[in-house]
Amino acid sequence: MTSVGAFAAPAAKESLVSYSYDPAPLGPRDIEIEISHCGICHSDIHLIDNDWATSSYPLVPGHEIVGTVSAVGAACELALGQRVGVGWQRSACHKCELCRAGHENLCPEQEATCVGNMGGFAERIRTDERFAFALPSQLDAAATAPLLCGGVTVFAPLRRWGIRSGATVGVIGIGGLGHLALRFLRAMGCRATAFTSSPDKRAEAARLGAEDAVSSTNAREIRAQANRFDFLLCTVPARLDWITFVQTLKPNGVLCLVGAPPGLLQISAGPLLSGQRVICGSDIGSPAAIREMLTFAAENGIGAEVETSPMADVNSAIVRVRENRVRYRMVLTN
Amino acid sequence: MTSVGAFAAPAAKESLVSYSYDPAPLGPRDIEIEISHCGICHSDIHLIDNDWATSSYPLVPGHEIVGTVSAVGAACELALGQRVGVGWQRSACHKCELCRAGHENLCPEQEATCVGNMGGFAERIRTDERFAFALPSQLDAAATAPLLCGGVTVFAPLRRWGIRSGATVGVIGIGGLGHLALRFLRAMGCRATAFTSSPDKRAEAARLGAEDAVSSTNAREIRAQANRFDFLLCTVPARLDWITFVQTLKPNGVLCLVGAPPGLLQISAGPLLSGQRVICGSDIGSPAAIREMLTFAAENGIGAEVETSPMADVNSAIVRVRENRVRYRMVLTN
Repeated sequence: MTSVGAFAAPAAKESLVSYSYDPAPLGPRDIEIEISHCGICHSDIHLIDNDWATSSYPLVPGHEIVGTVSAVGAACELALGQRVGVGWQRSACHKCELCRAGHENLCPEQEATCVGNMGGFAERIRTDERFAFALPSQLDAAATAPLLCGGVTVFAPLRRWGIRSGATVGVIGIGGLGHLALRFLRAMGCRATAFTSSPDKRAEAARLGAEDAVSSTNAREIRAQANRFDFLLCTVPARLDWITFVQTLKPNGVLCLVGAPPGLLQISAGPLLSGQRVICGSDIGSPAAIREMLTFAAENGIGAEVETSPMADVNSAIVRVRENRVRYRMVLTN
Repeated sequence: MTSVGAFAAPAAKESLVSYSYDPAPLGPRDIEIEISHCGICHSDIHLIDNDWATSSYPLVPGHEIVGTVSAVGAACELALGQRVGVGWQRSACHKCELCRAGHENLCPEQEATCVGNMGGFAERIRTDERFAFALPSQLDAAATAPLLCGGVTVFAPLRRWGIRSGATVGVIGIGGLGHLALRFLRAMGCRATAFTSSPDKRAEAARLGAEDAVSSTNAREIRAQANRFDFLLCTVPARLDWITFVQTLKPNGVLCLVGAPPGLLQISAGPLLSGQRVICGSDIGSPAAIREMLTFAAENGIGAEVETSPMADVNSAIVRVRENRVRYRMVLTN
């Protein structure tokens, strides 16, 4: 057993340092992955900073992993040399009602790849093969790493809510998640509108597939979109004018949050009742959703727009993410 | 053309007085109904009081109508002598996307039976036959009148959200709507819990089909139901502890409002995201939902529990409704 070289935060909010640890023995369904790429997600920053009060240190972040299977447990179905991806979730009970219904992402016993476990800012990782996904050969490793968390986070709710060709969809926030949403929607034949607080992203939104772009903070501009959308996907954990956004939904329309805004949501019941509108949240995606997304991405040539950085430069890469300068996702490479 | 005898509010918040009006000519799809029964819904009280600022006077309330077809327009499909029911809605455009998708109840051009039109506290009414529903012969007229508005208001969301045998459902408020919800749920094979602010309604809830009863206002009691319900149907337009109620939903669970609470809803995004929970509203039901409900009620022997009162005593009947003394729905008879 060789120790694993990694980068770890030694304490909350600190820069990462070189770190090595002895991996746990391989269970029968565990695999070891030789990591080639790992995305940096905003959740990694929250974990480094202990924003959710769930972190323990030293903490090895990283949960948008691409690599090659380098060891397999006795009962594994994946083969040595297989290229795989791993996202936020690393395990589930596989016994509860939710798991049996294919909602493993809602299992109360689930564990996360880098919460209480050593993550993907490392040479290797050991994890349950049921949460490692064979990658179609067409997919580029760097562009695919962010799909494993950011991608499925926006793809799964589009599928859950039956968004189909011709649907009008608003995407709030054009960043790591939002740019992927626009690409998926274009491939699905939907008509997308980008809501952004950055005027310079309006042209970007068109390039990424949006029909038009609207301010996400100017109430008058938002109000002009009344009764327009079948679906609104909010990718930013920001405090927004929910009352006005709900009114941009058509009757039966759905507002879906994939990031938790601070504080409480203030909602007017009127438009929920009179137009049977819906407010909901979505939490990553099930293994089935991840597989479906990877197939869809391969068939439609979809990947994240990435900057790459050698894993050794992880701290400067994190700074660029913190400063919101990455268009649109940072991926570390070994 | 004989004038129609009715009862009308001459001005906001006043007692009703005898009133007669000349009916409009029968259009090709219009019918005239000889009214035998008309329920009193809380919406009628809101209209009398001009609570929604939509009332014009003299105002003839009444939109839970049962009667017999006594005249038909040139192109009608309903026949003279047919027993029918009419609810909140009296027309739709039949052309818009929503109408064509079977969501006539969401049509922006819709008219209501007794908003800007003469309602059912009367001897007769003329209305569009496409919003008059043939009543199965098994249904008792008095017990069926409240189904036309109150009944479909709780039935339609159970169908929309796919509530099936074995589902756990909480019903908030055990009044005109809530008692019907409990009866429908029992017939559907669901496990219902009644949330009520009236301790004396707990035994009532069991009689109506609930497995148990819980306070709708005691946060500790509500909190003890955490993660329990597939569906929560809120039938009362009250300001409740939504944050705690949302936590009583299982993952993927749905909180559906059918009455508009005063002020804004305060919601925590956390349980929406981590459990993919849903908040929504529902607005009466489509003609298809009303027909399905009437068939379901006939097959399962479901009707409202009613008090009846001669139409001439409408003012004392309204007082009993205002004082919340009716168990569970008042129906006027001609």
